[in-house]
Amino acid sequence: MKQIYLDNSATTPVRYEVLEEMAPYFTEDFGNASSVHGHGQRAFRAMEDAREKMASLLGTSPQEIILTSGGTESDNLAIKGVAAARGRPGRIITSSIEHHAVLASCAILEKQGYEIIRLPVDGFGLVAPADLREALSAHPGETVLVTIMMANNEVGTIEPLKELAAVAAEASVPFHTDAVQAVGKVPVNVDELGVDLLSVSAHKFYGPKGVGVLYVRAGTRIASLQHGGHHENGRRAGTENVPGIVGMACAMELACAEMDEEAERLRQLCDRLQQGLLEGIEDSHVNGHPVQRLPHILNMTIPNAEGEAMLLRLDAVGVAASSGSACTSGTLEPSHVLSAMGIPPETAHGSLRFSLGRMNTTDDVDYVIEKLPPIVEGLRAMSPFSKELRS
Amino acid sequence: MKQIYLDNSATTPVRYEVLEEMAPYFTEDFGNASSVHGHGQRAFRAMEDAREKMASLLGTSPQEIILTSGGTESDNLAIKGVAAARGRPGRIITSSIEHHAVLASCAILEKQGYEIIRLPVDGFGLVAPADLREALSAHPGETVLVTIMMANNEVGTIEPLKELAAVAAEASVPFHTDAVQAVGKVPVNVDELGVDLLSVSAHKFYGPKGVGVLYVRAGTRIASLQHGGHHENGRRAGTENVPGIVGMACAMELACAEMDEEAERLRQLCDRLQQGLLEGIEDSHVNGHPVQRLPHILNMTIPNAEGEAMLLRLDAVGVAASSGSACTSGTLEPSHVLSAMGIPPETAHGSLRFSLGRMNTTDDVDYVIEKLPPIVEGLRAMSPFSKELRS
Repeated sequence: MKQIYLDNSATTPVRYEVLEEMAPYFTEDFGNASSVHGHGQRAFRAMEDAREKMASLLGTSPQEIILTSGGTESDNLAIKGVAAARGRPGRIITSSIEHHAVLASCAILEKQGYEIIRLPVDGFGLVAPADLREALSAHPGETVLVTIMMANNEVGTIEPLKELAAVAAEASVPFHTDAVQAVGKVPVNVDELGVDLLSVSAHKFYGPKGVGVLYVRAGTRIASLQHGGHHENGRRAGTENVPGIVGMACAMELACAEMDEEAERLRQLCDRLQQGLLEGIEDSHVNGHPVQRLPHILNMTIPNAEGEAMLLRLDAVGVAASSGSACTSGTLEPSHVLSAMGIPPETAHGSLRFSLGRMNTTDDVDYVIEKLPPIVEGLRAMSPFSKELRS
Repeated sequence: MKQIYLDNSATTPVRYEVLEEMAPYFTEDFGNASSVHGHGQRAFRAMEDAREKMASLLGTSPQEIILTSGGTESDNLAIKGVAAARGRPGRIITSSIEHHAVLASCAILEKQGYEIIRLPVDGFGLVAPADLREALSAHPGETVLVTIMMANNEVGTIEPLKELAAVAAEASVPFHTDAVQAVGKVPVNVDELGVDLLSVSAHKFYGPKGVGVLYVRAGTRIASLQHGGHHENGRRAGTENVPGIVGMACAMELACAEMDEEAERLRQLCDRLQQGLLEGIEDSHVNGHPVQRLPHILNMTIPNAEGEAMLLRLDAVGVAASSGSACTSGTLEPSHVLSAMGIPPETAHGSLRFSLGRMNTTDDVDYVIEKLPPIVEGLRAMSPFSKELRS
């Protein structure tokens, strides 16, 4: 049977070139990067080379790169770390469509007395810079941090980050962005964006799981959350995962080098899939911004068909897709992203996310265009809700 | 030139069998373990198999295993997680020879109003159960947690953990132990030890860096520190590092299977090294307990020779050793472990840790016995302090 993986926003396979680059650091140059002897220093050098490479790709300097265990840790460190450095509760402004790592970090601070402002989004999932300006001016001086994602993981909408960051800068409030879905897909340069903190996760761009980056602009006050040795200049304790770090840098370099060409290819595949499904499935429509969107994500709502049921039947014919974030799989809550975009829960339950990747071809897309419409037909025929509608 | 790695307590190379077991989870079964489709479920199954394997090796059930990014995170989660679950400051009892991950986690809580009791150790590095009993009875009901390491990372002393845990149990206080150096070297069974929380790090037993375990006995109240998706039953958010987890379980299984035989072999090598160095270097002596000690660690004090200088010269002849914890390399503070054992700072500066591993042979040991004495001679001849002493 065909195996078509269309869930590249959940995770990606490690590229062979990346694995090859990592390999010697597991077995030969395996030293602890904190050790003073040759084994340690070779590991340290590899780690610092990787750090420099990533800093350069993100448009910053190595001192501003904190190596973490992944996107969730980076988001937690950015939000709770900036809050802890301040030392007393204040206000944090975020959006209503953030990843759960951001939402949950904010929610914990809320319990500790912080005020969390969750900015609304429009029907495309866009945050309005005017809303941010208003929220910032309501209580000047009390805002600790603004955290708004660069691109949404469920619908792919790319936020007007430059404008949002500029508004925060006017108010002298640090700006964090979760760029986990954006890095390797669209250009990410911290100075051009004007952000102060930015989260990266390697396994979203064909790097290994368990490793990430938090960019922190020099001068931004941030407290460490994980305490122990003096790693990462006292900002993140723990023996460094050198093979993972080397792999992450290699994957980021490859993704950035191939980005323009690959983004164009993915956009065409996504457009083809979108066109085919819109034509093949009655009443279906696309969620997210039509243009300001990541090139590889297509989120569709298919009314009167249950999302999980479609996914299982797609899986049965070899197609792996998702109903939204992998981090919330298994829960029955409707997507908070679609809800924030004004899509009612019963409709949101019939949504699917296809996220394409470098292994996908036109054949893959055509296969889904062929297989999904009859699956939807079948489910709609079985649905009592659908029968009611049609009766 | 010979390359002899005698710093296996800092880190170890990943075994080839382990790397082979990890490999498919990078590239083929690479799915996000939270995804509902086949790719995700294969990753999930591999992760749960690994969890079951490790649970069984540690004498517990899979529900009591939290997967983390390593030993430092496990220690942080145990200490701050138990503290946070309680919700208001209390007292934490630890020892004065803990790893920095424990010391620093306690120090942060101290700033937040917790009272930290650091129990003394004797000249061998042993904590006395009577001291723990006294500390617990001084303020009954106010102690949140006892955290005492299973085996010390610098001198190898194995604490009387069963007795210590029993004292904590009498007082109904949860007991955490950092077993990072012990797992794979000596038997570790959570029920036999009677501990409630136990930290493990994969890269100390020929597993990969960036992955660890925190064992948490059912019923122990612990709050999550890293927030986001519902991973690890809400106790640790973040996409699971499946290849790392699979590798950790494989490495633990191999280490435990070979433990008895390998421990005996390492003990003989360590004894040979100890004997040779004591005979070859005037005034040298061994730190740590003569018998209650990890089989692979030999810590020696060599008066009138500077530790870092010895290490550099050993490195120059191809021998990698350490002056103590890799996590504090580069700092000029004397070892807090040796200080707590009553060794004065000027003597502690002349200490070396050799930690042997599965690649080491009698030849390696004999090479060090041949090379180190003339290095010490040379340094002592240059030392003004030494000249004064001898004049």
